Amino acid sequence: MSTAAQVIRCKAAVAWESGKPLSIEEVEVAPPQKNEVRIKILFTSLCHTDVYFWDAKGQNPLFPRILGHEAGGIVESVGEGVTDLEPGDHVLPIFTGECKECAHCLSEESNMCNLLRINTDRGEMIHDGKSRFSINGKPIYHFLGTSTFSEYTVVHVGQVAKINPDAPLDKVCVLSCGMSTGFGATVNVAKPKKGQSVAIFGLGAVGLAAAEGARVSGASRIIGVDLNPSRFEQAKKFGVTEFVNPKDHNKPVQEVIAEMTGGGVDRSVECTGSIQAMISAFECVHDGWGVAVLVGVPNKDDAFKTHPVNLLNERTLKGTFFGNYKPRTDIPAVVEKYMNKELELDKFITHSVPFSEINKAFELMLAGEGLRCVIRMDA
Amino acid sequence: MSTAAQVIRCKAAVAWESGKPLSIEEVEVAPPQKNEVRIKILFTSLCHTDVYFWDAKGQNPLFPRILGHEAGGIVESVGEGVTDLEPGDHVLPIFTGECKECAHCLSEESNMCNLLRINTDRGEMIHDGKSRFSINGKPIYHFLGTSTFSEYTVVHVGQVAKINPDAPLDKVCVLSCGMSTGFGATVNVAKPKKGQSVAIFGLGAVGLAAAEGARVSGASRIIGVDLNPSRFEQAKKFGVTEFVNPKDHNKPVQEVIAEMTGGGVDRSVECTGSIQAMISAFECVHDGWGVAVLVGVPNKDDAFKTHPVNLLNERTLKGTFFGNYKPRTDIPAVVEKYMNKELELDKFITHSVPFSEINKAFELMLAGEGLRCVIRMDA
Ligand SMILES: NC(=O)c1ccc[n+]([C@@H]2O[C@H](COP(=O)([O-])OP(=O)(O)OC[C@H]3O[C@@H](n4cnc5c(N)ncnc54)[C@H](O)[C@@H]3O)[C@@H](O)[C@H]2O)c1
Ligand SMILES: NC(=O)c1ccc[n+]([C@@H]2O[C@H](COP(=O)([O-])OP(=O)(O)OC[C@H]3O[C@@H](n4cnc5c(N)ncnc54)[C@H](O)[C@@H]3O)[C@@H](O)[C@H]2O)c1
Ligand SMILES: [Zn+2]
Ligand SMILES: [Zn+2]
Ligand SMILES: [Zn+2]
Ligand SMILES: [Zn+2]
Repeated sequence: MSTAAQVIRCKAAVAWESGKPLSIEEVEVAPPQKNEVRIKILFTSLCHTDVYFWDAKGQNPLFPRILGHEAGGIVESVGEGVTDLEPGDHVLPIFTGECKECAHCLSEESNMCNLLRINTDRGEMIHDGKSRFSINGKPIYHFLGTSTFSEYTVVHVGQVAKINPDAPLDKVCVLSCGMSTGFGATVNVAKPKKGQSVAIFGLGAVGLAAAEGARVSGASRIIGVDLNPSRFEQAKKFGVTEFVNPKDHNKPVQEVIAEMTGGGVDRSVECTGSIQAMISAFECVHDGWGVAVLVGVPNKDDAFKTHPVNLLNERTLKGTFFGNYKPRTDIPAVVEKYMNKELELDKFITHSVPFSEINKAFELMLAGEGLRCVIRMDA
Repeated sequence: MSTAAQVIRCKAAVAWESGKPLSIEEVEVAPPQKNEVRIKILFTSLCHTDVYFWDAKGQNPLFPRILGHEAGGIVESVGEGVTDLEPGDHVLPIFTGECKECAHCLSEESNMCNLLRINTDRGEMIHDGKSRFSINGKPIYHFLGTSTFSEYTVVHVGQVAKINPDAPLDKVCVLSCGMSTGFGATVNVAKPKKGQSVAIFGLGAVGLAAAEGARVSGASRIIGVDLNPSRFEQAKKFGVTEFVNPKDHNKPVQEVIAEMTGGGVDRSVECTGSIQAMISAFECVHDGWGVAVLVGVPNKDDAFKTHPVNLLNERTLKGTFFGNYKPRTDIPAVVEKYMNKELELDKFITHSVPFSEINKAFELMLAGEGLRCVIRMDA
């Protein structure tokens, strides 16, 4: 019997207050409204951003909330006006959307949709400013419009990428956020040419995905930079060929890299969130042609500072959001890259837990262990 | 009778000390050595850079010196090893060179030749560290490797662009520096698409050449920004459609421009040398796709400062040197653009004086009158 247009009762991991373990609850999930899709989530993975908003330090605390934004699932039903998705479609919900109508969506270059650009403060659906989740009639807030720590969730159609149904959702779910962000930063924005050198600042999941982009682009040297030397062993599996720890040197790391490379790397990608790393990542690229790409999310009061001559010497500085991918238009092709074995994802998935043990995924991330923990919803 | 291999005695305007009128003297010009070319200068024009190094405030004073770097002439003779130029070729000497062998020259993107990159402190030829100019045997310093304020000069072959002999040298001489710098900054680096909006900061000769690049690119709006309102009348002839004087507003000019354009211009080109204008030029471009290009030469201690979120929102910041043109490879084609009436140059030439009145050109520039004063060597 179809569940369409019905309230679905299912399990969700609810964050009741900041920093406290999630608790698995039975929730009601209302049917999708205009331009919305209800999705049965099969696999979801944990990203730092979930942890930040669970921890809620320096953030607007919004509780109770259902977190989660990296996931793969199957469309259960669609709301009014949804024409390009139907029940049974395999999809990835994405934390930022694509309305296909605004100036950003119409631009070939931008993915910063005016309607559906990431909004970490919003806890309701934009259609009616209400939540689709409740427990005994009391609303539970959404997160990033995705809230994938639930067996069923409701997402705006603009935040849903329809993908190849043969793609294993337990693997490609990680393309919803971090892996696409890092990979796209390299292949869409830094665009190293075959044989060029690339420096990656920060060897977390995003930085290693940027390194994967450099490997796929045929970079000759991939120089990993991190303050934490324990990151280096793992990074070797990701094609990182050389390592620099800024703490090992008594001069700025950009000078160390310039010496290693005869004047600077061809490309750099910053995936740390540290303003000092952003400046170093810019200043370490070669004059004449070097391109530096910023990915990390800085603190509110940070200032990027450099001597303008570093720019006049023909360096380029760019930033990217979600690897410059448009979620609906571009992400299906990234899934195909995985299917064609061009892009490797399995090495990013270091852990897997059943939904009932979702708090273990948080513990692993807080301990800095592994890269991605996939949470199996049906287990 | 050929003058090749002979010392030529001719007139040159010598700067004997900083800030004092040039004096026309008879000088000896030695024959070109290995990889050098001796050029009969027919027309030369005055650029701010000549005035800076004549004034020599905050610069390494190097006197007596023959200034001048925007010019057109004819090859008189060539030194050993010069194969791609011969006597009679029409040429533009250029203040920055192209050896065709270093990493920069081999890169498609860079024009910052390792061997012949601009060097304002050098007063001699690189071949032997000696000057080719003398008066009664006492050497006179070169300037930028060009020293075009002389009837004859000696230039490294890497700093000589061979152009169409039909091109009028009294017009295309201005392509040696400022006009190519501004025009190239727009067409090679900012690259506005047809119909896009472009802001130009600084409406001096370089900024108006950048505006000419925007006009040629089919920009829909060209917004001129200058602190000096007297620049606006002239700029209308250059296709500038709107004007903003930062002094007329009590909020930052980037906010004024964002309001005028629904979020920011598509492209901006900074041609002022003011660090505040550089920051505004960057912050006034639209998120998602905006590109800002810095051209102006800043002060030694200036710091470019912005919040990194301005970058993460998918803006691009670049700097350029000589409009990213490679002098030998690219400038001949810019001359062709003028010959095809694609690019207008005549409107930049507001004054003309005989060589004997070269100091008048300095006076005009110091008074901020006009854009380019062409100096006729044979008059
Ligand atoms: N722009 C986007 O769309 C987007 C999406 C997801 C994540 N992010 C951001 O990307 C960044 C990386 O994410 P992650 O999940 O890989 O984080 P992570 O914490 O796992 O990894 C960051 C790494 O950077 C290193 N680091 C910190 N400061 C450094 C410095 N000064 N020099 C060198 N290394 C330094 C840390 O030791 C760590 O290994 C974060 O800022 C995150 O917010 C951006
Ligand atoms: N990068 C290169 O290859 C190259 C080559 C030639 C010249 N330049 C540089 O380009 C710049 C412009 O050269 P020019 O000959 O046109 O100079 P100019 O002095 O004739 O024009 C500069 C204009 O900028 C305006 N200005 C100054 N500060 C401003 C501010 N904060 N906001 C708005 N307008 C401001 C001035 O009023 C003036 O009209 C100079 O810095 C020069 O050194 C660079
Ligand atoms: Zn949109
Ligand atoms: Zn994420
Ligand atoms: Zn070279
Ligand atoms: Zn000049």
